[in-house]
Amino acid sequence: MKFNTDFLLQRRTIRKYTAQDVPDEILDEIIAEGCRTSTTGNMQVYSIIVTRDSSLKQQLLPLHFNQGMVTGAPVVLTFCADFNRFNKWCLLNNASPGYDNFLSFVTAATDALLAAQTICVSAEARGLGICYLGTTTYTANKIIEVLRIPRGVVPVTTVTLGWPAEHPEQPDRLPADAIIHREVYSDYTDQEIRDYYSAKEAREDSARFVRENNKATLAQVFTDVRYKKADNVNFSRILLQVLNDQGFMNQ
Amino acid sequence: MKFNTDFLLQRRTIRKYTAQDVPDEILDEIIAEGCRTSTTGNMQVYSIIVTRDSSLKQQLLPLHFNQGMVTGAPVVLTFCADFNRFNKWCLLNNASPGYDNFLSFVTAATDALLAAQTICVSAEARGLGICYLGTTTYTANKIIEVLRIPRGVVPVTTVTLGWPAEHPEQPDRLPADAIIHREVYSDYTDQEIRDYYSAKEAREDSARFVRENNKATLAQVFTDVRYKKADNVNFSRILLQVLNDQGFMNQ
Repeated sequence: MKFNTDFLLQRRTIRKYTAQDVPDEILDEIIAEGCRTSTTGNMQVYSIIVTRDSSLKQQLLPLHFNQGMVTGAPVVLTFCADFNRFNKWCLLNNASPGYDNFLSFVTAATDALLAAQTICVSAEARGLGICYLGTTTYTANKIIEVLRIPRGVVPVTTVTLGWPAEHPEQPDRLPADAIIHREVYSDYTDQEIRDYYSAKEAREDSARFVRENNKATLAQVFTDVRYKKADNVNFSRILLQVLNDQGFMNQ
Repeated sequence: MKFNTDFLLQRRTIRKYTAQDVPDEILDEIIAEGCRTSTTGNMQVYSIIVTRDSSLKQQLLPLHFNQGMVTGAPVVLTFCADFNRFNKWCLLNNASPGYDNFLSFVTAATDALLAAQTICVSAEARGLGICYLGTTTYTANKIIEVLRIPRGVVPVTTVTLGWPAEHPEQPDRLPADAIIHREVYSDYTDQEIRDYYSAKEAREDSARFVRENNKATLAQVFTDVRYKKADNVNFSRILLQVLNDQGFMNQ
């Protein structure tokens, strides 16, 4: 191995940060490495909003369901699918951009997410801690207002960044065989599902989640408490409306 | 810095590979590191299809617009947004999954893309070369057939993987300031757009693209040749149909 990647295997999400700032020089290095990530046709159709200002973080806080990382972290990075910059370049160069459609949103969101992950890896290699906020897609309509995001741009994920003030247990993961399919997709038998999830179900923290939520199974904690159909349907409606409002549904 | 990340800054996409195989042990290590990537609620709603078989790669080749990496690389990785496994687990545990909607597709696609990028970083740290194939979203309907992908699963990107048989020039990137916004999104003036794209436009290879394609500007090479509106609209229609067919549009 040319470069040691042990930290990738040892990593854990960090939700508590020290008061120490992340200097601009370090952040610039991390972002420079992130900007080398593959992008579709080298169009680089994404943007990164770096938010350090306390009052802006306070405004973002409820949009991320009051998760303390938003105000607790020195840096909040909002990653956006962004065809605005590219469209403007086209229009200045007698070119007619055709990127106001769903495929273009997916292309730009992919650019943004791949760059986000390189940035997280680069940050963790430096001893920083990160946490992804999935809430970004739930409240994109309001994040757009707070961060003054124009048409052609959609926030797709948020990362909080800072120096770790905790060293939590690593969460469990499914066996790799549950994720990997050889040659083609091989659909799961009931027995395989039971086997792959058995270690997760047997964990003490899983049993505690079930108990605390008054549920019969761990799966019910997900379907009835954490990721409910009614919420998913509501957030789907909002997100599709955002895509429409930001100019990505004109196919 | 705890771990050296210079390779992130030095990387380039690799499209030509040696005949040497990628041993399963190395691939397993890489995927194990990838599986430590953040995922929404630790649901791990993604799958990785590892294709090495020549005849399958031949079938995938036209679906990736005959890009030679598909058959030239020892390994083709197809990353899928996958709620099928999680849904099956819910149903076996008296839980009613509500993940047949657009938000759930975005959640699962995000899981898949973040894991894909960790896997690419891990591969490159070992001296392997990778290439992303954006064609995955264009022909997802046909990739689903070839790779026998069931309902609840959508391929979102493909990575070819192998030992580099080339050392191409690094492509240009926009200045980082073009990608970064401080505190909030700061929309671009015409002058800023011109400044940010000036180095790209001044490149000899850009001038050659313009000349070879009989265009007046580099932007026109993108809008009129490489990423045309008619194609984007067509692929948008196919991809939205795939989301519908795979069970992600029931909000």
